[in-house]
Amino acid sequence: MAVTAPIRHIEGGLTAPRGWQAGVAVCGVKAFTAGASALGDEQREDLTVLYSESACDAGGVFTTNRVKSASVIIDQLHLANNRVQALVVCSGNANACTGAQGFKDALQMAKQTADRLDLDPNQVLVGTTGVIGRNLPMDAVKRGIAHACNRLGRDQGELAARAIMTTDTRPKTHAVELEMAGVTVRVGGMAKGSGMIHPNLATMLAFISTDAAVAPGWLKAITKRVADRSFNQVTVDGDSSTNDTFLILANAAAGNEPVEPATPEAELLEGAIVAVARELARSIAQDGEGATKLITVRVTGAADSEQARLAARTVASSSLVKTAVHGGDPNWGRILCALGYSGAELALDRLRLEIAGLPIFSLGAGLDVDLSAVRRAFEGAEIEIHAELGLGSGEAEAWGCDLSAEYVHINADYTT
Amino acid sequence: MAVTAPIRHIEGGLTAPRGWQAGVAVCGVKAFTAGASALGDEQREDLTVLYSESACDAGGVFTTNRVKSASVIIDQLHLANNRVQALVVCSGNANACTGAQGFKDALQMAKQTADRLDLDPNQVLVGTTGVIGRNLPMDAVKRGIAHACNRLGRDQGELAARAIMTTDTRPKTHAVELEMAGVTVRVGGMAKGSGMIHPNLATMLAFISTDAAVAPGWLKAITKRVADRSFNQVTVDGDSSTNDTFLILANAAAGNEPVEPATPEAELLEGAIVAVARELARSIAQDGEGATKLITVRVTGAADSEQARLAARTVASSSLVKTAVHGGDPNWGRILCALGYSGAELALDRLRLEIAGLPIFSLGAGLDVDLSAVRRAFEGAEIEIHAELGLGSGEAEAWGCDLSAEYVHINADYTT
Repeated sequence: MAVTAPIRHIEGGLTAPRGWQAGVAVCGVKAFTAGASALGDEQREDLTVLYSESACDAGGVFTTNRVKSASVIIDQLHLANNRVQALVVCSGNANACTGAQGFKDALQMAKQTADRLDLDPNQVLVGTTGVIGRNLPMDAVKRGIAHACNRLGRDQGELAARAIMTTDTRPKTHAVELEMAGVTVRVGGMAKGSGMIHPNLATMLAFISTDAAVAPGWLKAITKRVADRSFNQVTVDGDSSTNDTFLILANAAAGNEPVEPATPEAELLEGAIVAVARELARSIAQDGEGATKLITVRVTGAADSEQARLAARTVASSSLVKTAVHGGDPNWGRILCALGYSGAELALDRLRLEIAGLPIFSLGAGLDVDLSAVRRAFEGAEIEIHAELGLGSGEAEAWGCDLSAEYVHINADYTT
Repeated sequence: MAVTAPIRHIEGGLTAPRGWQAGVAVCGVKAFTAGASALGDEQREDLTVLYSESACDAGGVFTTNRVKSASVIIDQLHLANNRVQALVVCSGNANACTGAQGFKDALQMAKQTADRLDLDPNQVLVGTTGVIGRNLPMDAVKRGIAHACNRLGRDQGELAARAIMTTDTRPKTHAVELEMAGVTVRVGGMAKGSGMIHPNLATMLAFISTDAAVAPGWLKAITKRVADRSFNQVTVDGDSSTNDTFLILANAAAGNEPVEPATPEAELLEGAIVAVARELARSIAQDGEGATKLITVRVTGAADSEQARLAARTVASSSLVKTAVHGGDPNWGRILCALGYSGAELALDRLRLEIAGLPIFSLGAGLDVDLSAVRRAFEGAEIEIHAELGLGSGEAEAWGCDLSAEYVHINADYTT
């Protein structure tokens, strides 16, 4: 599925594609949620409205957690109509484990946004992220929705990416453009980090917009596949938060012929969407809580691509590998150990391991390697670990970050 | 399977049962492995020989990792004869990923020990733990074996437990005695901690001895079941190191009638073995790297006991729960989140959650709880989390520890 047509990086994030607007507002959700007596504890933007000038074809994948935020359940309902046109995201409160009130609140968020934008409530999706088990401060949220809708604009992709953050240290956006049959099509996106990312993931939210016209249902068909090659290689199915959400929305503003499944255009557009998704996924890994280094794990020669994905993300999420990388400790046995328990087929005598291009292990035993060179590689800001399993043609990448003492400090004191 | 006969705690650890001896020696294995130029970097005991005065009935369970230490493979072979009489354990080097030389070295360890004790090499089991991917310093190991065999004695259970440690901060032993048909029977044990315990476990070694006489093959039949109720609730199948080993050995020195399967005596003895195993498992959790608190997670009302075990250990191993407990942060949403992704059946409106006896969540929503009382509970040295799932009769406990910044410091710099 190689995409050979040039894909150009452009500015603008989620609002780079035509017909997309965003608006943000300050609600003080986190302060209200934590029970602060007054507004103003935290004056940063925490409510975001995304708006498309026309109804979209949409696809979504959500957390596999059995405990789901009310937002996730509402979104699954609203997506069924496939005429979504807006999204409202509130940062600072997950609206999960909040009982019947939580559902009322999530529906109210959709309804308030729909009223302001002259849409039907089921055309609005809802995202929430933050502390579990507290009710939303709905008065503040309603004021925020009104304010954000009044401030909608086409150049607010970066602001929106900033407003959905929780413990993220920087906004995560990416956008590209490409030519399809003479028409310029754009794909944009933004994400908020998954905090600790793995093993159990503070919420990851990721939204991709495009101005391409697509056949109805096409996005729904590809969303899981895109996630498997991007966000699911940072997070892990079955190991996800109550709120994880990944949406792709296409509004047809580019004026191209609608992209039909299984055509060269479909392959091109999916490639561009995957490119944006992978860049966002890498950004999430790079900005893991307390992270100082990006770890890319590449597995080749696996029995199949599912096993390659499994092996790569197991290594990327091993706490022992993460701490070794953090400490610049060339303890490569931990990488083999993680491959060993990943569940992927393994034949030790066929496995070759390289760290930052340095051969480390081959033919069932460690090579006589200059450990100080490995140590220097571990000290870089980006580390590539490559395991060639020698069994088949399965390939995958996964992204993680080192585990630092700072991670513990952040998470030991999150609600307080 | 309630055991009602009194089980008394006794001193002596693994050598508390009759006919058991231990001897230890200083080899400097870690210093040699790390490439130190001279002996003496680390003068603590690191080689242990355990010896039974008669051949044993034995059972063992081992790591599920596809990358297995040579020791594990040799043990699996030697157990097949079921006449084990000694065990040699070397701490500081895992002898894993060491190719053909690793197997030769593991066999040599068995052979050297057998020669000294006048046994057949296949009567000797081998345990190793430490850094992966380095060859054993066999000259030092051989000297150590000779020395340890010369120092065998019946009161060395505590010394032996100390000599198998790696990053453990204290030795882990437990022993009990009980009456069976008028005969006093003893069960003893020792373990070394699993370092980080979870998610991917530095090596856990656990050995249980008894002087009970048992029908041949009985221990083999119960070992996995004992592990499921103890060590597997600290570690996780499929998430294990290259070297994890749990052995039970019975030498018949008590002179009781051999315990036959499915008798009241079998139930009694299994109960005593489980009691020792659970105490060792708790000690491992309590001494996790950087741990300051023991977390006990009790799940009741699960659909079945397998699901109860799964749910309990998922909560106990959640990094977000562990850091929250460390920080004394009453963020109970993380517990529900972990239950949600555990894979166990869950109906949120039936779930009841208590922390340290304080009701926290019921009927699908958080209770109006005094968070400062929860916070005080989190500040204790032992925290019990209890989730009643309201679905069936499955029950289990799991043990974990908090995640501290100290953990990161230990693991960022392990080989160096």
